[in-house]
Amino acid sequence: MTAAMTRKSFGSDNHSRAHPAVMRAIAAANDGDAVAYGADPWTQRATSELRRLAGAEGEVYLVLNGSGANVLGLGLLLGRHEAVICAESAHINTDECGAAERILGTKLLTVPAPDGKLTPELIASRLAGRGDEHFAQPGVVAITQSTELGTCYSLAELRKIRDFCADNGLRVYLDGARLANAAAHLGCTLAELAEHADVLSFGGTKNGAMGVEAVIVMRARDAVNAPYLRKQHMQLSSKMRYLAAQFIALLEDDLWLRNAAHANAMASRLAAGLAGMTGVDVVYPVESDAVFARLDRQHIARLQREWTFHVWDEAASVVRWMTAFDTQDSDVDGFLASIAAVTGSAVA
Amino acid sequence: MTAAMTRKSFGSDNHSRAHPAVMRAIAAANDGDAVAYGADPWTQRATSELRRLAGAEGEVYLVLNGSGANVLGLGLLLGRHEAVICAESAHINTDECGAAERILGTKLLTVPAPDGKLTPELIASRLAGRGDEHFAQPGVVAITQSTELGTCYSLAELRKIRDFCADNGLRVYLDGARLANAAAHLGCTLAELAEHADVLSFGGTKNGAMGVEAVIVMRARDAVNAPYLRKQHMQLSSKMRYLAAQFIALLEDDLWLRNAAHANAMASRLAAGLAGMTGVDVVYPVESDAVFARLDRQHIARLQREWTFHVWDEAASVVRWMTAFDTQDSDVDGFLASIAAVTGSAVA
Amino acid sequence: MTAAMTRKSFGSDNHSRAHPAVMRAIAAANDGDAVAYGADPWTQRATSELRRLAGAEGEVYLVLNGSGANVLGLGLLLGRHEAVICAESAHINTDECGAAERILGTKLLTVPAPDGKLTPELIASRLAGRGDEHFAQPGVVAITQSTELGTCYSLAELRKIRDFCADNGLRVYLDGARLANAAAHLGCTLAELAEHADVLSFGGTKNGAMGVEAVIVMRARDAVNAPYLRKQHMQLSSKMRYLAAQFIALLEDDLWLRNAAHANAMASRLAAGLAGMTGVDVVYPVESDAVFARLDRQHIARLQREWTFHVWDEAASVVRWMTAFDTQDSDVDGFLASIAAVTGSAVA
Amino acid sequence: MTAAMTRKSFGSDNHSRAHPAVMRAIAAANDGDAVAYGADPWTQRATSELRRLAGAEGEVYLVLNGSGANVLGLGLLLGRHEAVICAESAHINTDECGAAERILGTKLLTVPAPDGKLTPELIASRLAGRGDEHFAQPGVVAITQSTELGTCYSLAELRKIRDFCADNGLRVYLDGARLANAAAHLGCTLAELAEHADVLSFGGTKNGAMGVEAVIVMRARDAVNAPYLRKQHMQLSSKMRYLAAQFIALLEDDLWLRNAAHANAMASRLAAGLAGMTGVDVVYPVESDAVFARLDRQHIARLQREWTFHVWDEAASVVRWMTAFDTQDSDVDGFLASIAAVTGSAVA
Repeated sequence: MTAAMTRKSFGSDNHSRAHPAVMRAIAAANDGDAVAYGADPWTQRATSELRRLAGAEGEVYLVLNGSGANVLGLGLLLGRHEAVICAESAHINTDECGAAERILGTKLLTVPAPDGKLTPELIASRLAGRGDEHFAQPGVVAITQSTELGTCYSLAELRKIRDFCADNGLRVYLDGARLANAAAHLGCTLAELAEHADVLSFGGTKNGAMGVEAVIVMRARDAVNAPYLRKQHMQLSSKMRYLAAQFIALLEDDLWLRNAAHANAMASRLAAGLAGMTGVDVVYPVESDAVFARLDRQHIARLQREWTFHVWDEAASVVRWMTAFDTQDSDVDGFLASIAAVTGSAVA
Repeated sequence: MTAAMTRKSFGSDNHSRAHPAVMRAIAAANDGDAVAYGADPWTQRATSELRRLAGAEGEVYLVLNGSGANVLGLGLLLGRHEAVICAESAHINTDECGAAERILGTKLLTVPAPDGKLTPELIASRLAGRGDEHFAQPGVVAITQSTELGTCYSLAELRKIRDFCADNGLRVYLDGARLANAAAHLGCTLAELAEHADVLSFGGTKNGAMGVEAVIVMRARDAVNAPYLRKQHMQLSSKMRYLAAQFIALLEDDLWLRNAAHANAMASRLAAGLAGMTGVDVVYPVESDAVFARLDRQHIARLQREWTFHVWDEAASVVRWMTAFDTQDSDVDGFLASIAAVTGSAVA
Repeated sequence: MTAAMTRKSFGSDNHSRAHPAVMRAIAAANDGDAVAYGADPWTQRATSELRRLAGAEGEVYLVLNGSGANVLGLGLLLGRHEAVICAESAHINTDECGAAERILGTKLLTVPAPDGKLTPELIASRLAGRGDEHFAQPGVVAITQSTELGTCYSLAELRKIRDFCADNGLRVYLDGARLANAAAHLGCTLAELAEHADVLSFGGTKNGAMGVEAVIVMRARDAVNAPYLRKQHMQLSSKMRYLAAQFIALLEDDLWLRNAAHANAMASRLAAGLAGMTGVDVVYPVESDAVFARLDRQHIARLQREWTFHVWDEAASVVRWMTAFDTQDSDVDGFLASIAAVTGSAVA
Repeated sequence: MTAAMTRKSFGSDNHSRAHPAVMRAIAAANDGDAVAYGADPWTQRATSELRRLAGAEGEVYLVLNGSGANVLGLGLLLGRHEAVICAESAHINTDECGAAERILGTKLLTVPAPDGKLTPELIASRLAGRGDEHFAQPGVVAITQSTELGTCYSLAELRKIRDFCADNGLRVYLDGARLANAAAHLGCTLAELAEHADVLSFGGTKNGAMGVEAVIVMRARDAVNAPYLRKQHMQLSSKMRYLAAQFIALLEDDLWLRNAAHANAMASRLAAGLAGMTGVDVVYPVESDAVFARLDRQHIARLQREWTFHVWDEAASVVRWMTAFDTQDSDVDGFLASIAAVTGSAVA
């Protein structure tokens, strides 16, 4: 059986294979018996390294996928009756089939957010009705870093949100499915990002892992229920060592950061190549591994005959082009050539 | 980093590593890009082979672990208000932290069941109150094959349950985390087992996989909601090919059956070795890869200094000894020697 | 103990007392013993009359309040994984503290709707992503009649929604907390309204009852789970006769319709009186018992010193003035005089 | 329309009508306008009197029925992942259609309890597995007073449970649907009962109200979420004054206690009358308003032709006979005569 695609996909960073170092770590962990459910040396190592990297005083929980991380993370912070404030474009709102509502019974109070980023003002717009039993009561603000639109909050922007939330009795959950890309873009540490959240996810799968995410609980008191909720949410892996091994590989020599930096660089290369073209407008700042562009509907259709990518907004004729840790210069250049040919532009 | 244990664990079949063929299949799938979420050739192959093997007219869904399979499977069959009849010893009742109640909002109507097996009579004992709005309304009967106590339903016993349920408007969910062991014990096909259920799980993880289970929906009409519920239950893997590859390996040359048959044989070897000993009583028929035995509390404690296994019932002084696909004759013999030494028996 | 207010409230139709005929019916039902939970002659009479009035082939269930009716009604129509399309202004979205999400685990897919009314086009705008497991899957369209903004769907508008939903595999739930006001406004029967929904509520509480709503299931097949869901939703009253008696009174000599027509007439009188004033703009068509008006923030504050009503939209400086079955001409005229005084208008 | 029954029902205390004083209080509250949802003088009076009577430092919430009280009360005390320990015979386990599981997503860890009463030892039997993520984690112990079997915990028994729970990190919920009967039986105050619980319900409906229960939260910190959960649970009444008026009547001159004492006396009269009969065995101590008796199956059938009551346990041939605030000596004597006639006993 061979791979499904002959050309590099620009459809998603999860179209990529696992990084060879991840595969080697998994193979190395495939050695003899180990106690199940995380009481093994690989899990101890991965979680303690993640805790240190994030500067967390609490605990780290490995889970099976991004939705699992988000729902668990929100569940740790939400009071039984509380709602979540998030951007309309948040993955938890648009791409998880209503998992947060189904599993947590919570309401998402969404805000249209330019560039996918919340601000204290946008959050404040959803606070009317606090203390009135007829209105859903926000308890958590959920942000995504880097966002679903490829943008990044600056550290100053994160700080403003954190401080506003602290002042207003709101907890902060950070969906970090692509947190590595943000760290690479901002040139900061994971801890400098993590300190602005109460609980965050740290994604492996889109960054070279086979399938693993970490839920990082910054303070111990928020972690008390986590083992039980992880189990109830069906996110507890029995042969946990294979999840842990993936993070061990990603953390070694900062592979997580190098993978993300590379993917970001490929997106920048793509954006740079588009700059000179006519008929292709990049619609959001390119601050991670995604390029959103508007181009003619028929040009989109023609491009999709050869290349894999998603139409993001049918009505607005906007597409999303994602790069990944294993996207090559030549992939980008070939893709640019096709775009140029389809749109009738010259390649820069 | 090295394995956690120097002696073979008798603690659980999920203490084992993945089978080498599974590892090879995963490595082979780590090739280029593939569309995410199951639209890849590996997933197509694994699910279509599983469908054929089970004789299912419906669909097959790969999920991330056993609780995920159970909750999804039950959710496909339960009406919004309905309850589940199961044995008190059922994994969904005792070992999943209340996941079924939490995620599905359902009530488990439990029945004390000798040897872990339900019967039409035991099921009938929970049907009083049907049609009365004050009582929880059973909609699904959940059975486990092989059971949590290491026993197997015969095909005739399964047929009686299926027929009783059909006659009484009840759907059948079969927890098949160790279904392979049952097939090996009964010498029957997967289809001969599957036909007695409406939806079943088919376990990979305890049988040599790294971490994958299949939810098999026997009739298409029961599968309509499955993709959405799988996503809401956070059981949809993005890089699905790595789940699929595991089943591809297990299905090739009936590795699943050979693994299970071997594990069963090791349990039988263990039970045979115990037969001649004094101070060790096997308490359930050994019909899969588990041996439950009663022995002196102090003997248990002494054995646990050298060997890994669980005390099943503290009060009754009963332990559970599990074998696995990679348990060796010498492991069993060494364990038997220790048991003999501790109990003061002669080895047979 | 005396009533809390000396002037008639324009705050809500649930500020009113119960109609004397309702009180008499309750007193009359307070006679001897009756079997609990609805197996009594009052309940049989009320539900069978309601069924006939609505032209329902299914069943009628009395419940305790409006949120209870809405959540039960939606729950009868929703598949386990499905979402609800509704107007942003829908009571279920804005005024029930997230009950639908909490109790049903469903997601509300909201649409900004001018005048509070959905249209096929607005509904269609929420159908992208059907069949894609990442997106919440709408199964029910929820409309309110009369709407939360005091407007009414015409029968033709309802028919278009019903037909569109039927064509698109969507069920229709109608929140009829003020359905009587719509019937009075449109001059139609309850059945002419009910036929456009699969399940609807029919409100008593805001229309002269003490506290009772009916959930009307138009087709029997949708009612199969209703008794159990009503009980699980804590909406089953033990001494049901007192709920039933209220509807018996409301149905006798069309008291429900006369009450609603009177309340509507009072709102129209209020709107007519406002017509000649400066500084007060009525912002939605007055088609039931509510008048929404924009006036100066300071004028609002001054009015609220003497009269009870709600500010609907702080930012837009819009208030809601509700009338009720027991609002008198003189109440309206007195209120108009105060408005005129505050705004410096002449009374028409 | 006339009452459904010509003879006094022994079926349930909710077969009774409302007490005349309750009806008068409701009629008195039907006066002019009042702000909805509890911001009215009736509600303020009823809740503050209830708070004082129970010795609660927290808050009191009026709700619509017993299941509503139980689910809200449990929800206030349960952590998101936690389970409830209760007697197998608990109303929440047997008579609420699985509402606690459906609404709260919690698991009920049931214990067979002689006479319907838990003890520290019985509770302790459900504590194995605390701290292990595979097992449901009990957070709340739910007791019923008086119990579903008509028995009462003594104050000493309650104190032992409260102390055991405090020592073991468990919260106590008390289902007080018939708490008045317990106070009457024990000759103690409501506060002396309430102090053993963290949250309790106090029933009105079975004790002469039309339909109202109170949820009493003993400490303010446990009440923080209560208004929102009450709304989400659809237990918030808009015209709250009519709920409040019922409690105002019940509290005036200790009507609640007199009603309960009378019902208890009628049950005692019934039990005393049975004492001399052959063929009728009272199976539980008669400590409230219920008598459970074993008699011949055919005798039961014959009695049911004339009298209304429930068979409690078909297999054991045990019936439940309930008295009420309005049961008369002559009702009991007539019933006794019928029992004597059917069983061939002489009336004492």
